[in-house]
Amino acid sequence: MHWRQISILGVGLLGGSIGLAVRSAIGNCKLVGWGHRIESLRRAEEIGAIDSFHTDVASAVTGSDLVVLCTPVGTFEDILKQIAPALNADCLVTDVGSTKRSVVKAAEKWLGPQANFVASHPIAGSDKRGVEFARADLFTNALCILTPASRTPPHAVHQIESFWKMLGMRIIHLSPEEHDQRLADISHLPHVLAAALVAMQDDSALQLAGTGFLDTTRIAGGDGGLWKDILLDNADNLGDSLKRLREQINHVMHLLEKQDQKTLQTWLATAADRRAQLLERKLREMKSE
Amino acid sequence: MHWRQISILGVGLLGGSIGLAVRSAIGNCKLVGWGHRIESLRRAEEIGAIDSFHTDVASAVTGSDLVVLCTPVGTFEDILKQIAPALNADCLVTDVGSTKRSVVKAAEKWLGPQANFVASHPIAGSDKRGVEFARADLFTNALCILTPASRTPPHAVHQIESFWKMLGMRIIHLSPEEHDQRLADISHLPHVLAAALVAMQDDSALQLAGTGFLDTTRIAGGDGGLWKDILLDNADNLGDSLKRLREQINHVMHLLEKQDQKTLQTWLATAADRRAQLLERKLREMKSE
Repeated sequence: MHWRQISILGVGLLGGSIGLAVRSAIGNCKLVGWGHRIESLRRAEEIGAIDSFHTDVASAVTGSDLVVLCTPVGTFEDILKQIAPALNADCLVTDVGSTKRSVVKAAEKWLGPQANFVASHPIAGSDKRGVEFARADLFTNALCILTPASRTPPHAVHQIESFWKMLGMRIIHLSPEEHDQRLADISHLPHVLAAALVAMQDDSALQLAGTGFLDTTRIAGGDGGLWKDILLDNADNLGDSLKRLREQINHVMHLLEKQDQKTLQTWLATAADRRAQLLERKLREMKSE
Repeated sequence: MHWRQISILGVGLLGGSIGLAVRSAIGNCKLVGWGHRIESLRRAEEIGAIDSFHTDVASAVTGSDLVVLCTPVGTFEDILKQIAPALNADCLVTDVGSTKRSVVKAAEKWLGPQANFVASHPIAGSDKRGVEFARADLFTNALCILTPASRTPPHAVHQIESFWKMLGMRIIHLSPEEHDQRLADISHLPHVLAAALVAMQDDSALQLAGTGFLDTTRIAGGDGGLWKDILLDNADNLGDSLKRLREQINHVMHLLEKQDQKTLQTWLATAADRRAQLLERKLREMKSE
């Protein structure tokens, strides 16, 4: 695939990083930006994440081979509706949203069920906000989940896969439903817990925070507007994750009341072992690619 | 205060780091180790964290100016009982435990209420275990909480304060009760949550873990035996912390059910702001000292 023009809709951390990563992977590709804040668009242009920008979204996608939606998930449907009439017939469309059922549904509605839309979720990011934190290597060796619908044309899936591979990503496929269920557990729930852990503290306790507390709550630093969209869009799965987490809490409360040394130690040690295995696997993945 | 001989009881990460830190701060101080595992004692000797060791705890404290308890909190009472008859009359005793009510009580019982015992909690550590991860700079610029009892001799408090300052620490004083209450919120609760977050995951979700999940659960990698002691010793306060965290979870579940965008965004943004302020303060503290 020769990418001649790519539109990046939303030039924050992710959109900006895509621009920089494309730039460092291939030459001769025109990068067109769009966004609400003119300041961010200018900044993205300055750092070379985009070549030019439009403030009208239909103009921003005209003539492109690929459009990447990098705005909050709550804006996707409206953007898809607006760009639909302006897209080239063979233009590919993808997104970087953290939920997948809603965007797949919106794309089927506004672009048609056989459109070249392939939903993506690159598992990369930061608690830092804005294009000033964009990095060309943000996606290197990270995982990208594609959730093509049953009627998505195979060549579109193949091309979107090539695009993320070009940025250094490893690819897996899941159904939109599986994606949203698993991400509720592994990403959306941790975000809620990190925020809850900050929210429940008195100032007097916060004074005593060590590096452990700072690490545990790092992701709570993420953008509230962006995360509000994600959590509400995946409310059903996240509600289930929260229930299961609450059961774990009730279990520990019970062990504390009973002063059950043995079961508590096993519970803690099992979690420690499981995390150690996960970390080992992650480090291996990072090195091997 | 001239420290001629210091006994380090328990030569893991903290005990070993104390040895290395004392060594780099002052010359001419004999460091005597004690522990259950001969392998760890030899290793501590090899890296210079101790000069010699005993496998009998009474012998290990004989002739020392200072004894530092660095074993799990569940072992303190038994060790205090064993060392009491062997201590020099003016020997200072402290500990590095993460709970303070129980050790203050045990010291009053076995050493006497006017003994030179000053409970300490240096807020420094790692999820790494063992003397091989000991570092001379582990305590630099970190906070040390002292919880002297009402009858603790002031000169003892002063000398223990000097000891931790010599290792680069900032000092604050709290009552044992205040300490245990605040630490339940800011340290013991995060540990339980990190472990719960690992425990409730399916393997299929763990495959998708990003750096956010790894950070949020880092402290769950801590030693199960050591943490079991801490959590059970502070069960009453921790139970209260867990209840308050559960209320936060219930609040979020309610907002998700109602799809209450505004309240959820405010809740997330407030947590993000509070954590940003905390981080800023922590970075300032690190630099200024």
